[in-house]
Amino acid sequence: MIIDGMADRPLEELGNKTPLEAAKTPKMDHMSQLGVNGIMDPIKPGIRAGSDTAHLSILGYDPYTVYTGRGPFEAAGVGVDVMPGDIAFRCNFSTASADGIITDRRAGRIREGTDELADTLNSIELEEDVEVIFKESTGHRAVLVLRGKGLSDQVSDADPKHDGKKFKEVFGLDGSLEADATAVILNKVIKKSYELLKDHPVNIERMENGDNPANIILPRGAGAVPEAEPFNDKYDVKSACIAETGLIQGIAKIAGMDVIEVEGATGGVDTNLDNIANSIIKNASLNYDFILINIDGADEAGHDGNLKEKLEFIEKVDEVVGRIMEIEDLYFILTADHSTPISVMDHTGDPVPLVIKGPNLRVDHVSQFNERAAASGGLCRIRGSDIMNILMDLMNRSSKFGA
Amino acid sequence: MIIDGMADRPLEELGNKTPLEAAKTPKMDHMSQLGVNGIMDPIKPGIRAGSDTAHLSILGYDPYTVYTGRGPFEAAGVGVDVMPGDIAFRCNFSTASADGIITDRRAGRIREGTDELADTLNSIELEEDVEVIFKESTGHRAVLVLRGKGLSDQVSDADPKHDGKKFKEVFGLDGSLEADATAVILNKVIKKSYELLKDHPVNIERMENGDNPANIILPRGAGAVPEAEPFNDKYDVKSACIAETGLIQGIAKIAGMDVIEVEGATGGVDTNLDNIANSIIKNASLNYDFILINIDGADEAGHDGNLKEKLEFIEKVDEVVGRIMEIEDLYFILTADHSTPISVMDHTGDPVPLVIKGPNLRVDHVSQFNERAAASGGLCRIRGSDIMNILMDLMNRSSKFGA
Repeated sequence: MIIDGMADRPLEELGNKTPLEAAKTPKMDHMSQLGVNGIMDPIKPGIRAGSDTAHLSILGYDPYTVYTGRGPFEAAGVGVDVMPGDIAFRCNFSTASADGIITDRRAGRIREGTDELADTLNSIELEEDVEVIFKESTGHRAVLVLRGKGLSDQVSDADPKHDGKKFKEVFGLDGSLEADATAVILNKVIKKSYELLKDHPVNIERMENGDNPANIILPRGAGAVPEAEPFNDKYDVKSACIAETGLIQGIAKIAGMDVIEVEGATGGVDTNLDNIANSIIKNASLNYDFILINIDGADEAGHDGNLKEKLEFIEKVDEVVGRIMEIEDLYFILTADHSTPISVMDHTGDPVPLVIKGPNLRVDHVSQFNERAAASGGLCRIRGSDIMNILMDLMNRSSKFGA
Repeated sequence: MIIDGMADRPLEELGNKTPLEAAKTPKMDHMSQLGVNGIMDPIKPGIRAGSDTAHLSILGYDPYTVYTGRGPFEAAGVGVDVMPGDIAFRCNFSTASADGIITDRRAGRIREGTDELADTLNSIELEEDVEVIFKESTGHRAVLVLRGKGLSDQVSDADPKHDGKKFKEVFGLDGSLEADATAVILNKVIKKSYELLKDHPVNIERMENGDNPANIILPRGAGAVPEAEPFNDKYDVKSACIAETGLIQGIAKIAGMDVIEVEGATGGVDTNLDNIANSIIKNASLNYDFILINIDGADEAGHDGNLKEKLEFIEKVDEVVGRIMEIEDLYFILTADHSTPISVMDHTGDPVPLVIKGPNLRVDHVSQFNERAAASGGLCRIRGSDIMNILMDLMNRSSKFGA
């Protein structure tokens, strides 16, 4: 169970406590008393992990090998059945003027009709033997996948990052024929998107209502879909993932895990934690050997620098932890994927606390679950990449190396 | 000094203490007070190490590179001068019927005459340019080494693992010409072993006495002898090994260490610890810079799930530790190569305690030698592969990396 971005740094306004130290978390503290504690570097000490790279590492995949960019995981997360070798991009629906100036990168924060726009874009046919797969995500967000031979993810972004600038011509980044060819295709797709969307009924209606039209797509964050050994084969388990965001769901999908949707799971501090807890408890009673859980709100509060929301959300998550602790006969690992300190408003490379509860553990003296208390625990300091090995050993599911 | 399999997990019948926590170990505890303590992952966290792979790692060899299987170390351990490229197998002397059914995999647990049988098998000559080297080990155990060009260790086992089954035809595992050729040779050797042994005087006498004849050899556990940099060159030391089992002695031999035999060292809980202690003390006064010690009984008790024997053996080993502590002017490292918990009866991936005693150490506050106390020590959590570097640094025998 990964509480996204929960770990933090001491804050003067909390008497130099971290939010996790200051919050009332009786259940997590009880868990630390019953278990073995330590601190964990999601990737390695000091590395500022993304949620995606941290989760890959924790699941036993080397992010330096597997992670080529955010695109493939976003694409898998919104339901594109990506295949190894596909090149995937994150996209915005944006508003462009006739001369290519991006007047609104978020197309008036469009919420309705993006599925129809995506349908239209899926009709794009290229003279090259390359398939164009387009899928809307939440709001103005979408993903683009190119499928075919001789493609590369070494291409630049089209997104100019600021309103009022012309969208950028995409170019190859490494001088390879593949990258140059991919850039040519991408520039065609962007041009065709404007042609197909500028007079689209959805946009005509938007303009009539005084909204900015979503008349162009701007790809960024190219990544090649990696060849990842299926998680269930790697560890000989049946696994599932309960996560709120497309990014984490996408990682689970590329790893071949079952992805369980929870109604009302928003990925924010307003998420329905009760539904999430119910789903965890229900699925833990099914025939899964392993469930990956990601709860995202603390990270959002951290990015927003909103201490009050972070404290309140941690205290609400504490109740979910209490409910999971009541499930019998399992190893329960509670941790975070990285720190998102209120004072930094972004991820940092600080280690995160970690506790394991379950049968036959070398229970230690730690009595509170937080960044500093955990550091004196029996696990000392481990890495994200150690977790699956430790868990499979405890579950007696790994085999001996040697005699 | 590696107490094989000494580390464990908490046991309810010991009030949730581990055997090492429950046993009376005043000498080890005193050593922890005088030294610097920590926990160690023999390979890496959660990996279930064999004794062989753990010892390789502790001696500074990467087991993922060097370890190809148990055969080469067993062969070296029983005194075959193996050479890089040799393919080595563990074998049983077994009893086969005329139609190839294995009626007794252990040939009536034969104890006498295996040297004569081995002599006979060493006369095997093949039309291929491959040398057959055969050597008896303890009881029904033996090793087979094939020496020649174009051989492979990617071959299956002949041992059917259960009595009453026909022995298995060996086949190549990776489709290579070398593996297929090696399988052909191995099948010939097995067939010839039956021809040479079925009417062997040793077996005629056995049958007259109503014992099962040792009339076939069944190879398994193929491994290619690795190219390992001699330990003495790697660390610029003169080194020796005092170990009880052929497996650990074999590792020491392949590493080029002097192997010192101790009379009465059985590798079990009944071993002669007094003789082992005397040998350590004697050899420490000779001109060795480094002595690797392995004492095996705690591992045997762990595999047997025999708590009483494990506790008693740890307490007996404590006295050996006390005697070594009296030797002056040395760095003394006490640890285990893996956990063999009574509750699991096999190796697990739990870290093991480790203490270093000697001059100029940053002595910590730890006052007991066991799994949990060590975790709060000054070494924190290290890996097996760190030990030689730490020791050579303390002994001021390593050189600076950089300026």
